[in-house]
Amino acid sequence: MRPRVGVWLFGARGSVATTTVAGAAALTHGAPPAGVVTAGPAFSSAGLVPIEDLVFGGHDVTETPLAKQVERLVAGGVLPAGLDGLISAELAAAERNLVVLPIAPTQAEVIELMAADIRAFAERHSLERVVAINVASTEPPYEILYDDVGALRSALASGSPLPGSCVAALAAFEAGASFIDFTPSTSIRPQVIRDWAVERGLPFGGQDAKTGETLVKSVLAPMFTARALPVHAWSGTNLLGGGDGATLADPRAAESKNVSKERGLVDMLGPDVAGQVHIDYVDPLGDWKTAWDHILFSGFLGVRMTLQFTWQGCDSALAAPLVLDLARLSALALERGHVGPMPFLGFYFKDPVASTEHSLSTQYEALVAWATS
Amino acid sequence: MRPRVGVWLFGARGSVATTTVAGAAALTHGAPPAGVVTAGPAFSSAGLVPIEDLVFGGHDVTETPLAKQVERLVAGGVLPAGLDGLISAELAAAERNLVVLPIAPTQAEVIELMAADIRAFAERHSLERVVAINVASTEPPYEILYDDVGALRSALASGSPLPGSCVAALAAFEAGASFIDFTPSTSIRPQVIRDWAVERGLPFGGQDAKTGETLVKSVLAPMFTARALPVHAWSGTNLLGGGDGATLADPRAAESKNVSKERGLVDMLGPDVAGQVHIDYVDPLGDWKTAWDHILFSGFLGVRMTLQFTWQGCDSALAAPLVLDLARLSALALERGHVGPMPFLGFYFKDPVASTEHSLSTQYEALVAWATS
Amino acid sequence: MRPRVGVWLFGARGSVATTTVAGAAALTHGAPPAGVVTAGPAFSSAGLVPIEDLVFGGHDVTETPLAKQVERLVAGGVLPAGLDGLISAELAAAERNLVVLPIAPTQAEVIELMAADIRAFAERHSLERVVAINVASTEPPYEILYDDVGALRSALASGSPLPGSCVAALAAFEAGASFIDFTPSTSIRPQVIRDWAVERGLPFGGQDAKTGETLVKSVLAPMFTARALPVHAWSGTNLLGGGDGATLADPRAAESKNVSKERGLVDMLGPDVAGQVHIDYVDPLGDWKTAWDHILFSGFLGVRMTLQFTWQGCDSALAAPLVLDLARLSALALERGHVGPMPFLGFYFKDPVASTEHSLSTQYEALVAWATS
Amino acid sequence: MRPRVGVWLFGARGSVATTTVAGAAALTHGAPPAGVVTAGPAFSSAGLVPIEDLVFGGHDVTETPLAKQVERLVAGGVLPAGLDGLISAELAAAERNLVVLPIAPTQAEVIELMAADIRAFAERHSLERVVAINVASTEPPYEILYDDVGALRSALASGSPLPGSCVAALAAFEAGASFIDFTPSTSIRPQVIRDWAVERGLPFGGQDAKTGETLVKSVLAPMFTARALPVHAWSGTNLLGGGDGATLADPRAAESKNVSKERGLVDMLGPDVAGQVHIDYVDPLGDWKTAWDHILFSGFLGVRMTLQFTWQGCDSALAAPLVLDLARLSALALERGHVGPMPFLGFYFKDPVASTEHSLSTQYEALVAWATS
Repeated sequence: MRPRVGVWLFGARGSVATTTVAGAAALTHGAPPAGVVTAGPAFSSAGLVPIEDLVFGGHDVTETPLAKQVERLVAGGVLPAGLDGLISAELAAAERNLVVLPIAPTQAEVIELMAADIRAFAERHSLERVVAINVASTEPPYEILYDDVGALRSALASGSPLPGSCVAALAAFEAGASFIDFTPSTSIRPQVIRDWAVERGLPFGGQDAKTGETLVKSVLAPMFTARALPVHAWSGTNLLGGGDGATLADPRAAESKNVSKERGLVDMLGPDVAGQVHIDYVDPLGDWKTAWDHILFSGFLGVRMTLQFTWQGCDSALAAPLVLDLARLSALALERGHVGPMPFLGFYFKDPVASTEHSLSTQYEALVAWATS
Repeated sequence: MRPRVGVWLFGARGSVATTTVAGAAALTHGAPPAGVVTAGPAFSSAGLVPIEDLVFGGHDVTETPLAKQVERLVAGGVLPAGLDGLISAELAAAERNLVVLPIAPTQAEVIELMAADIRAFAERHSLERVVAINVASTEPPYEILYDDVGALRSALASGSPLPGSCVAALAAFEAGASFIDFTPSTSIRPQVIRDWAVERGLPFGGQDAKTGETLVKSVLAPMFTARALPVHAWSGTNLLGGGDGATLADPRAAESKNVSKERGLVDMLGPDVAGQVHIDYVDPLGDWKTAWDHILFSGFLGVRMTLQFTWQGCDSALAAPLVLDLARLSALALERGHVGPMPFLGFYFKDPVASTEHSLSTQYEALVAWATS
Repeated sequence: MRPRVGVWLFGARGSVATTTVAGAAALTHGAPPAGVVTAGPAFSSAGLVPIEDLVFGGHDVTETPLAKQVERLVAGGVLPAGLDGLISAELAAAERNLVVLPIAPTQAEVIELMAADIRAFAERHSLERVVAINVASTEPPYEILYDDVGALRSALASGSPLPGSCVAALAAFEAGASFIDFTPSTSIRPQVIRDWAVERGLPFGGQDAKTGETLVKSVLAPMFTARALPVHAWSGTNLLGGGDGATLADPRAAESKNVSKERGLVDMLGPDVAGQVHIDYVDPLGDWKTAWDHILFSGFLGVRMTLQFTWQGCDSALAAPLVLDLARLSALALERGHVGPMPFLGFYFKDPVASTEHSLSTQYEALVAWATS
Repeated sequence: MRPRVGVWLFGARGSVATTTVAGAAALTHGAPPAGVVTAGPAFSSAGLVPIEDLVFGGHDVTETPLAKQVERLVAGGVLPAGLDGLISAELAAAERNLVVLPIAPTQAEVIELMAADIRAFAERHSLERVVAINVASTEPPYEILYDDVGALRSALASGSPLPGSCVAALAAFEAGASFIDFTPSTSIRPQVIRDWAVERGLPFGGQDAKTGETLVKSVLAPMFTARALPVHAWSGTNLLGGGDGATLADPRAAESKNVSKERGLVDMLGPDVAGQVHIDYVDPLGDWKTAWDHILFSGFLGVRMTLQFTWQGCDSALAAPLVLDLARLSALALERGHVGPMPFLGFYFKDPVASTEHSLSTQYEALVAWATS
């Protein structure tokens, strides 16, 4: 029997995780892999683990059954009608691997309990390796006060100095798993967390998947640059409902998001571009997202011109195939013994770890080059 | 004194040509080179002729003074207020190099008269080389009945078997100039015209500059491909006034345009994408162009999503800096002794000669690689 | 038992008719009457027939079961999931009233057979009155060669001089039913058909329901007029799939549509507004329609400005509640003995019979005034 | 000689005021009155003062010459090229009537000095009556602590309890002028200020002219209502540069604007509509404003649909003709002896005094009815 790869999801009952698990099941039933980049011919020689060899598990704070979440997503038009019936066996299998986030007096203990959950999962399914991916709700920014691993260990042993996303990352590392942050949360931002990963000889990547407005930005901004057209202002408004929208209605969580959304524009066009980005919670939009961007630029001799775009997408359906990609690519990195940041995954992120490259086409080339090297 | 380069424009009194001549003059007076791609650092080692060493001349059917055209473009907001006063000397100099298109019983004679005009221009200004660029109105498609140079020569000697754009190309070649078609006209499409260029040992390129809607398409289509998102329909409507709009209100001329506009989409996304492209003449828009595109695509498991964009630009102000680029790059090709098609200029065109690459970023890399090789 | 009203639909198995029948059933099960104008308080004193007292029947050329059409519309997101189960009894009842369009050597005989179908329906259900509404596919324009009722009768007795929509109208009149054309087909356009209705003492109305782009136009154009802002150009592109889209992909059918779409703009803003309207068939859009309009206007001292809008709607879901409105209002007109054209229904139509008023607010006031008079 | 009417502008050197004065002059030189509602035939019987009989004066805090402001607006494309030369006499005449805002230890004294300026203006030009209009920058919201005229008079005599807009209103009333607030500032919001106007027997009106996004809202919202289509969310983003943009970049001033922008939507559609309105200062847009609105509504049986619009306008060029309208209509109100609020001017305002009607068509009818009564 072929060795299989475990995918451990933090936030395993959320819309992105549910769509990922349901979608992977649908693919094994013959659905076409739309949106799965690594299913394309450019990656055929990379030796990636087949999607049907991925085994899903994860932590969540809630206990809503996966099947119920699938039902909700079918009703909202995110998943196709009739899917729930087709994949009930796979959902039940994943359900058995979902664990409630443990509670303990110190975060050192929480990390150990979580790592034990991951190790038990790996043993139960005889997994060759496990890749962890954070798809939980976006946290507010968080200041970490420790800058070396030893000091942090002491603090963890006596209290709770870290936000949940950092705890999740450390639990993954303690269980020998790679870690990717699909969100803009703190997780692997602090140097001390990255040092911890390196100490354990593990790779990490992220952050904040680019699935909509920022994806479009990452091809339009290089277009202006390539054509030497000065951009004067770039303004954006994002309307979204659903759980993600509700989280981002909290201005502190939105701050994490905005910082990572705007980083690319500054890296691509410089700091002198006017304009703001808004994220509005519009509950009746449900799982759908609409973004409007207005770009003011000038042509020859200063003539002012504009480009506007409106993106209307379903975030979970855009995110889930990327989670599958990242699982397969992380497994390859683990297999190759890669340690530390994975800048070659920048193609997937608004705020790529250890990279200032934001042009989608350049990022794509780098990704293919690494995967097929 | 440094050897200078002649730029011979067919359609030398039109909006694009006028903006080019006026703009080059403005640059020598210190205007920033917005939109001039070859003014960027990526080209600094290419040894391109400085813009102030370009000398302009050309043919046109009308005799409206350049200064009057500049005045019209200032009133329409295409050129900045006050420019006409600043550059009157340069306009007068170019005016002296503009010649009315000759008339003669056979096209062989017309070609000879036109070539003589170009040679006289080169001698008058002691030009090292001349590059010719067609910026005249778009012609309807035209079927050429000759497939070898000899047969074509005979036909030219006894009649008028060619459309104007082919005559212009041949006149350029007879005068030892390179030729670039900025429009979708017939010019260098027929193999026999290309053979003629090769016989003369000259380079040629084109066709149909991508300045707006198609430019945006050439970064968005590769984005969908890179992300494995299937595109189901791509619909577009272009509204434009001005001379170009009036020409394209003729359905036969619009046909030339549509063919070259749609080629890229088919090459990039395949033939199964639904949707039409409209070009509407909206006289009150003047020199301004608005394009709206609607793209229907799907994500994971077939969920339908859309991207729309609206581009509002001034075509002449987008085209003119590209004409300067193409003049400089053609001069380099001539200098290097390049013969035949110039696929490395595909970055500039909707329907690139001898190339099926339409992704802007790939085209940009190919251009820089060639220029700096 | 209260007397009930029959609603006879031509095109009774199409998307609009199916959504109407299914929607009326859903309302009796408690769905809120979104989009049903006559359900509002402004009409409470009008004494309109309750929606639950409407009985549906009709002609169609196909025999696809209604239940199958409902299933298709549920899958396409036009009707809510689960509706089919809820309303199966009502669908079966309506199914029994659907008749295949009869065939006969002369149109006189066809009309008589169709009228007999309608009369049988009325008797079977003891209906107090029957209102007929044409929701069949749009026909190409058609030139009628007869201008008095007698001459037309002779021609019908010996052949087939009329398009289907006119035959439908005459069948309605022969059965004592009112007739409304929800489409831009010929039906009641010819004076001779209108004379026939008057001879029978019956009311008629239409044409071409305004459900999307034209609806928005009918409030925006009066806005420009009220604010004395000159409109220079109004351009529009409509993308639609589904059966309606396939029909309008035929340029001759599209011509009928365009004529009625553009009439309002000319009536509201005069003949000097530039711009075209396109209707594109985009099959993958299914039952959904997207319209983009671009309006170029000027403010004080000629400054050019623009307004653009994008409408994304589901035509059947917009049309069906209006069919219910028109059924109720026609029944009121019959009850009041109204004979001839019904200009007070202009609120619903792009090309209102016997009216040049296109401002939605003025039309609304006229409708309420008539209904409550 | 016909009696003339004085128009006293608070903020007399700003963009709106300058465009108003320059535009009125242009009209007397034959420019067509685009955007001047009262120039239409519906008002021909109202006996309004001709625009050439308006005499302009006003207060401002700056001393930048009007001619310089006109020059700036010509450069920005707000006023047509060449206008400055044509109307220099009129500009010089208005310049002589502009006064710097007086400074004094108490606001009672300031009011008296300002009123004296207005009275001197009226006498100098033998004006029959004076109408005052506030076109100064938007102030932050301001809480007035006095609720009767007597108490307010005492407070004014010993200090400065009022924001500038209230002081301006009182100065107008003390000089026997009517007062209209074109902005959302405090001015006539407090009951005590309104009581003061009534005590003096004068009319007042406002507030916050609807010139763009809100104008469009005031026809689209009634469209949804008339068609019984439930609106679930209405989101808007306004991008603007110029002085107005800079003022609204202050969140406190933006608050005044937002309150008055949102009032109409609530009055028209009820309080349950989700969505936010943003006002972003985008300096490079200059005097131009772009608004994008996204409306989520549902049709029959809950199907979700959307309407989006983008408005691109030049605020001053939209505002100035309305200032001329309001001057003429205020003069009529004064002539008729109207005292207190003028709800019949609601057509012009986002936040109409003494009215909850926001539908543009209903407001237009009310305006014409009053003017021609």
